[in-house]
Amino acid sequence: MRKYIRDLSPIFEPKSVALIGASNSPMKYGWIILANILANGYKGKIYPINPREEKIWDLKVYRSISDVPEELDLVDISRPAEMVPEHIEECVENNVKSAIVISGGFKETGKEGEELEKQIVRIAHKGGMLLVGPNTMGIYSASASLSALMPPIMPKPGEISLISQSGNIGTNLLAFGSEQGIGFSKFVSSGNEADISTLDYLEYFAEDPSSKVILLYIEGLREGRKFVDAVKRIKEKKPVITYKAAVSRAGAGAAKSHCGTLAGSTKIYEAAIKQSGAIRSSTINGMLDLAVAFLYLPLPRGNRVGIVTWGGGYGVVASDSCELAGLEVPPLPQETIKQIDQLLPSYWSRGNPVDLVGYIDREVQPKTLEEVIKVENIDAVIASGFILGKTIGSSIYKLFGKEDEDSEKTWAESTTKKIVEVLRNLVDKYHKPIVTVTLTTDPQILKKVLENRVPAYSTLETAAEVLAKMYEYQKYLKKEEEHNI
Amino acid sequence: MRKYIRDLSPIFEPKSVALIGASNSPMKYGWIILANILANGYKGKIYPINPREEKIWDLKVYRSISDVPEELDLVDISRPAEMVPEHIEECVENNVKSAIVISGGFKETGKEGEELEKQIVRIAHKGGMLLVGPNTMGIYSASASLSALMPPIMPKPGEISLISQSGNIGTNLLAFGSEQGIGFSKFVSSGNEADISTLDYLEYFAEDPSSKVILLYIEGLREGRKFVDAVKRIKEKKPVITYKAAVSRAGAGAAKSHCGTLAGSTKIYEAAIKQSGAIRSSTINGMLDLAVAFLYLPLPRGNRVGIVTWGGGYGVVASDSCELAGLEVPPLPQETIKQIDQLLPSYWSRGNPVDLVGYIDREVQPKTLEEVIKVENIDAVIASGFILGKTIGSSIYKLFGKEDEDSEKTWAESTTKKIVEVLRNLVDKYHKPIVTVTLTTDPQILKKVLENRVPAYSTLETAAEVLAKMYEYQKYLKKEEEHNI
Repeated sequence: MRKYIRDLSPIFEPKSVALIGASNSPMKYGWIILANILANGYKGKIYPINPREEKIWDLKVYRSISDVPEELDLVDISRPAEMVPEHIEECVENNVKSAIVISGGFKETGKEGEELEKQIVRIAHKGGMLLVGPNTMGIYSASASLSALMPPIMPKPGEISLISQSGNIGTNLLAFGSEQGIGFSKFVSSGNEADISTLDYLEYFAEDPSSKVILLYIEGLREGRKFVDAVKRIKEKKPVITYKAAVSRAGAGAAKSHCGTLAGSTKIYEAAIKQSGAIRSSTINGMLDLAVAFLYLPLPRGNRVGIVTWGGGYGVVASDSCELAGLEVPPLPQETIKQIDQLLPSYWSRGNPVDLVGYIDREVQPKTLEEVIKVENIDAVIASGFILGKTIGSSIYKLFGKEDEDSEKTWAESTTKKIVEVLRNLVDKYHKPIVTVTLTTDPQILKKVLENRVPAYSTLETAAEVLAKMYEYQKYLKKEEEHNI
Repeated sequence: MRKYIRDLSPIFEPKSVALIGASNSPMKYGWIILANILANGYKGKIYPINPREEKIWDLKVYRSISDVPEELDLVDISRPAEMVPEHIEECVENNVKSAIVISGGFKETGKEGEELEKQIVRIAHKGGMLLVGPNTMGIYSASASLSALMPPIMPKPGEISLISQSGNIGTNLLAFGSEQGIGFSKFVSSGNEADISTLDYLEYFAEDPSSKVILLYIEGLREGRKFVDAVKRIKEKKPVITYKAAVSRAGAGAAKSHCGTLAGSTKIYEAAIKQSGAIRSSTINGMLDLAVAFLYLPLPRGNRVGIVTWGGGYGVVASDSCELAGLEVPPLPQETIKQIDQLLPSYWSRGNPVDLVGYIDREVQPKTLEEVIKVENIDAVIASGFILGKTIGSSIYKLFGKEDEDSEKTWAESTTKKIVEVLRNLVDKYHKPIVTVTLTTDPQILKKVLENRVPAYSTLETAAEVLAKMYEYQKYLKKEEEHNI
């Protein structure tokens, strides 16, 4: 077990930030990053650094780090690679605690860049300064309201933390997440990891109470053994969800040219991740699907799934998806069937999956759902067809001719709102997970649903995969628990 | 080979429609279906039938089919199962050409229902009347502007036709598609298939010039051998894309209770579909992803993919996805690398995948893309990061402080519009497919992109899968061609 965890708070909780390479030109990252920091409402002090500028917006610009009247927690460097060593030197001389080196042109470009990278690490270490990157897209911290990122993104504050070995994929997950109402606590694009590694970030986030679920986009690992130990240990406290890229020959080749640190045998990384027991997502965006489920739902005690759908076809595909994911779809007790007989028309499916047979009464749906979730031998429920899209809602109202008074708003928002409250209450009442499959891809609706802590997906396959991974995690925790007794 | 194709034009091109069970109560399907027919602008004559109503909206209501003053092409029946035989009888007596039996309560509910179902088929056949269903959610026809559907959906007219053995899954695909700008030519929820079978619809759509791509959601098949022959034959003219449900024990069990006709061995259906060479989608919504690619793009001549992304991570995952899907990512010729050297900063990846290294200049992106697509040994291109979401676009403009004049509209719509035009032009110029991966899930943007005939997906995995299936189809056609020489 690793004893020493590096204190990364100067990066994620800085009281002051300087930006070397701050610019008045909107085509430069020195402008975009500063704009991002301002737009996201960073509350600390901001010092733009540029010897050729006087002012950027209302901010006074300083000629160099030496001119800044206070000791700095964090300096963001957006300058050509060959200029970086002298800026790092200047930071060290002024007791700067940490730096983010946005610039590319280091190890990822070849021998010369590799030398330059070694040089900046040497200088930083001499002064005990932390180094993010180089070749990074920056960091985000909800607690500091700090978005020191290259792409212009406004992440939604929340409880998921993400470490990404690709800046684009990481920042894109932040953007996707925000569109869907998913919030983040901390984010880092780890870049070439010349100083701080994925493992360092992972251990820091593990200790951070505001990071409830940790996501990792991994191309390669330098410290396989230590990574395995760390994930094993962290998993007992919080879920670690990974996506491992560069699994193919072509992918590994691409990774090598993109991120200098990560050459090496794909098979060893694969084995390490498998051994660590990290939760693995089969797609990149799937990490977000898993994250919200782990964040908002209790773990299923077993693998027996009740399926309630608004039509038979969904029941078929949900059953397929469950079985293929290793979940069971057990029969319902006679008592439950009798209860549901009193709720649904006589031609309902009379078994699991429960087919609501397109029954329109929106009061009966949640009652039926409750009959299923309360069953002793049901550990989790997949509910499909409860959350409708605007297409359906608005069409109904257009047909009613009530567009102006009642309008789509009433249907899509308030009906959905009621159903979402019911779903949430059932989860809390029975301490069992319900994963919801929507009849819409509309992010405005999905956002509202997620903001009410109801995980909702657009496919049944995803819902089953999410439940299967939760069940796997629960089995792991139980095994560890038995092991520790 | 099947010689006789049933003429289903009374169903899909009716000059007149009657609705038995038309109602003034919005909680009844007899109301919703009528509302759907009106709302979608059906141009033929509409006759609501109900002995207890005088008027529904402005429409005169008739007591029975016998009272209707003209011979009817199509009658829609939304009445309790036990009433259906006498309505069918009445239709036959009045020379009605076809009927859609919405009602459930037939074969799918057991022995008694099965008898009832046999009875209505006997009566219909006696009068030479075509029968859709029973237990169907209805049909849609763009050419007739007819949406005789149970759920309130406004499908977008287009060139994709869909046959679904689940009403919910089928109509939901229409709704999803419409949200995303995907248009449909014809749709049928085939229900219990007491009279007209999946095979009949398939052969009719095969001959229909407005159906350019055919989608099939299948739970089971009655005529396996004939189905194989039909798909083999049709595939030479147009792509047939299938999703096969009920592949697991649990799924097959659910299918049996949901759709009476489809009990039997899963393995036989599996073999039949495999043998037919139909294009198979691994997810339900994936059928739409494939459909737009087959509709809008030329087939790749080989499996060699050029990858152009806005960041290295995308290149890694795209390479992984290609290799795992059986596609190659070949190196670029020196000449091409030299050309791109003149476009991108020196630290670009200098190989395939091409990493645009976050270069902001939106003029350079399409130029780089053209250098890649024109390469002799590149058959298709995956372009990632060209289409941005509003989150990113609007943030930039918020930062610019130009929200009112230039606003998100300018960025998201007109920049995207230009890029989409470029992508489309490159496809047409080089006769090679480009599949696009967006940085957004916003359906408003995706809709605009698709309406400009540019297939765009939200994941790299999907893009690679789509190209792999197109390549497979191209190989099939080539083999058939050689076979026929």
